[in-house]
Amino acid sequence: MKLKAEIIAIGTEILLGDIINTNASYIARGLALLGIDTFHQQVVGDNPARVKQAFEEAYRHANLVITSGGLGPTEDDLSKEMGAEFFGVPLYMDEIAKDHIAGYMLRRGRTITNNNWKQAMLPEGCIPLYNDNGTAPGFILSKDDKILIMLPGPPSEIIPMFDDQVIPYLRSISDEIMISRTLHICGMGESAVEDKLHDEMISMKNPTLAPYAKEGIVDLRITAKASSEEECRDMILPVEEHIREMFGDMIFGADGETLTDAVLQLLRDLDLTVSAAESSCGGLITDRFVRQSGVSDRLMGSVTAYSNPSKISLLGVKEDTLAKYGAVSEETAIEMAEGAARIFGTQAAVAETGIAEQTNSSKPSGMVCVAVKVGDRIESETMVFSRRRNSNRELAAVYSLNLLRRVLMQVKKNNY
Amino acid sequence: MKLKAEIIAIGTEILLGDIINTNASYIARGLALLGIDTFHQQVVGDNPARVKQAFEEAYRHANLVITSGGLGPTEDDLSKEMGAEFFGVPLYMDEIAKDHIAGYMLRRGRTITNNNWKQAMLPEGCIPLYNDNGTAPGFILSKDDKILIMLPGPPSEIIPMFDDQVIPYLRSISDEIMISRTLHICGMGESAVEDKLHDEMISMKNPTLAPYAKEGIVDLRITAKASSEEECRDMILPVEEHIREMFGDMIFGADGETLTDAVLQLLRDLDLTVSAAESSCGGLITDRFVRQSGVSDRLMGSVTAYSNPSKISLLGVKEDTLAKYGAVSEETAIEMAEGAARIFGTQAAVAETGIAEQTNSSKPSGMVCVAVKVGDRIESETMVFSRRRNSNRELAAVYSLNLLRRVLMQVKKNNY
Repeated sequence: MKLKAEIIAIGTEILLGDIINTNASYIARGLALLGIDTFHQQVVGDNPARVKQAFEEAYRHANLVITSGGLGPTEDDLSKEMGAEFFGVPLYMDEIAKDHIAGYMLRRGRTITNNNWKQAMLPEGCIPLYNDNGTAPGFILSKDDKILIMLPGPPSEIIPMFDDQVIPYLRSISDEIMISRTLHICGMGESAVEDKLHDEMISMKNPTLAPYAKEGIVDLRITAKASSEEECRDMILPVEEHIREMFGDMIFGADGETLTDAVLQLLRDLDLTVSAAESSCGGLITDRFVRQSGVSDRLMGSVTAYSNPSKISLLGVKEDTLAKYGAVSEETAIEMAEGAARIFGTQAAVAETGIAEQTNSSKPSGMVCVAVKVGDRIESETMVFSRRRNSNRELAAVYSLNLLRRVLMQVKKNNY
Repeated sequence: MKLKAEIIAIGTEILLGDIINTNASYIARGLALLGIDTFHQQVVGDNPARVKQAFEEAYRHANLVITSGGLGPTEDDLSKEMGAEFFGVPLYMDEIAKDHIAGYMLRRGRTITNNNWKQAMLPEGCIPLYNDNGTAPGFILSKDDKILIMLPGPPSEIIPMFDDQVIPYLRSISDEIMISRTLHICGMGESAVEDKLHDEMISMKNPTLAPYAKEGIVDLRITAKASSEEECRDMILPVEEHIREMFGDMIFGADGETLTDAVLQLLRDLDLTVSAAESSCGGLITDRFVRQSGVSDRLMGSVTAYSNPSKISLLGVKEDTLAKYGAVSEETAIEMAEGAARIFGTQAAVAETGIAEQTNSSKPSGMVCVAVKVGDRIESETMVFSRRRNSNRELAAVYSLNLLRRVLMQVKKNNY
């Protein structure tokens, strides 16, 4: 059937501005990727009359309503009851949901209260969505061309439930499905990517091609619509190959792969360890490594040399270099990278020195010099970003990692 | 007048999940702090018919509607026209808005197109809200007990416009106003804070007292309602004093002050420089310093020693200590702090070594050992967090900075 969706977030905390409605955005994106239109979203408090009103309002425009939140264990949480009432069905005690709740509480060493069993009550005739990450099950209820999907509020519960249970369901009832593949590009701005792809973006109807930019990375999303997943994938493949040919090494990964994943993979392929020397990034390059699980076989460590004396004493940057070229120069960045490689005993190193915001320096705000050392090979680059302090720092970290990736790719190619 | 608000975000990007609706959250929070109730929020696309429908829906429940977005320069952006139509007034060319747009474009060296002048058209009888951070002015329109406030979409434009122009307007038309003061507590969990304040939270009606927890910090919000700002402040003061007496040094600041602000202030008071040694935090402690402007007079630098050899060679941690107590131990953390102070030549240093997530170590996941050195004084602490990898890392960074703050406070007290 042709689905038109509306998303309702239930939660007084959202109305008070105490939490941001990220669930709506997550669900909206998931629906868009499936090709399901959403024309309207609502937020209401945990109040039965207002929840009911929101349902009435929603089904005026939509045939698929997805809610988040309001499934708590207390007497006041009546959203589920409102959903069942709206569909004219009673609640029943779902024994499997009960087992899930008992198991969840047991694993956490918590005591089950009577309130928890209330969460195992589900509308008759629903498809239960069991919850391994919390106590509240979700459910899918459908009747007379109307579908209601109610999901729990905490992101750690709703995200896996939506991905693993709701998306396959929606695929199964859609006439057509949409599948997307996203290629990640670093080292080229959004408008340059759009210029390069101008003809493709205009002429292509299915699959479609759309760029999305964020923090120094441009995502190119290829989306195909067909009656099966396999058919979609067959349509995407030649487009992906064409784009890979056009952008070459600027593409560092696809879908869930991060820039750090790409760098770590290259380091593993080449059997190299890595270290970093930072200045204006102040820990952001290091954090991009350490955020990932299992980096301790590659990353030996890093230094943030925020003062000139520490650049000299710790990283061995020459006083002459600082005097002649300044702290923010490719010459200094190169000596910082060499210093990091030496003190951490790594074959690869990445270094950055920059000006995150306006100072009394003669060099422009947002200027950053990056250097990479891999074995004997050394490369450096200068960029100027024009955002605010911490956005400039984030961009500098991304471009530093990307230069490291590019040099590692060259080394890998030369090895063969 | 008694205001009941509804927030409408206008933007197809939100419906597609490409951007998160942070504006709604920001406005909602501002309204809550003013004591204005919001029972409903909506999101609609840039579509005149749907925007009009959203207005109709909103004024069914509310007398104050605040919108964000939809004020762009292109022909398709018709939200403003819908607002004027709804209130039955024509648009006029606002000359001051025109000057603002011309000035903004000039400062950025951009060319003004005819589309930009469209943005200077405003509904007759409105209060214009001029925009120094973008081209689209906002406005306030009121008629027959209905108020419409339309604001631009980009957070960098809407936030100053809301804070500097909308909040004073709403204060001026409210019978009563609400003022809040927020005290920040680190070193005690939310439930412990609530227990300690149980009697106050129950007995106090005006001002009220409410705790909010995030990332290792508990915010205590004191909110007073009265007919003037001065009266509110007079009511808040004795409550603040009472709470400061109860929590003492656990309170590190108020309102916009961060934990890093408090640490930097103490370092300046004591005329000390600082360095850091990190392990599982991997740059997050350093980042908390470098995020702030003007830290280069205090922070000399930091080391992330992610491997045991780098802990030994760079920070001078003894092999014996690692063998006897392990890399994650207070003994190792202390030697890391001593090492950082030595190599960066600082009087103060903070160090952390931990296990961000389950490994084959005998020590528990989320365990972190923190050490602080200030002059001859050394203190250390062990904590175990039970979140996921990167949340554990964030908490460890917050607690590390807090231990540094506590030791600096003791040193400051002993100096007098």
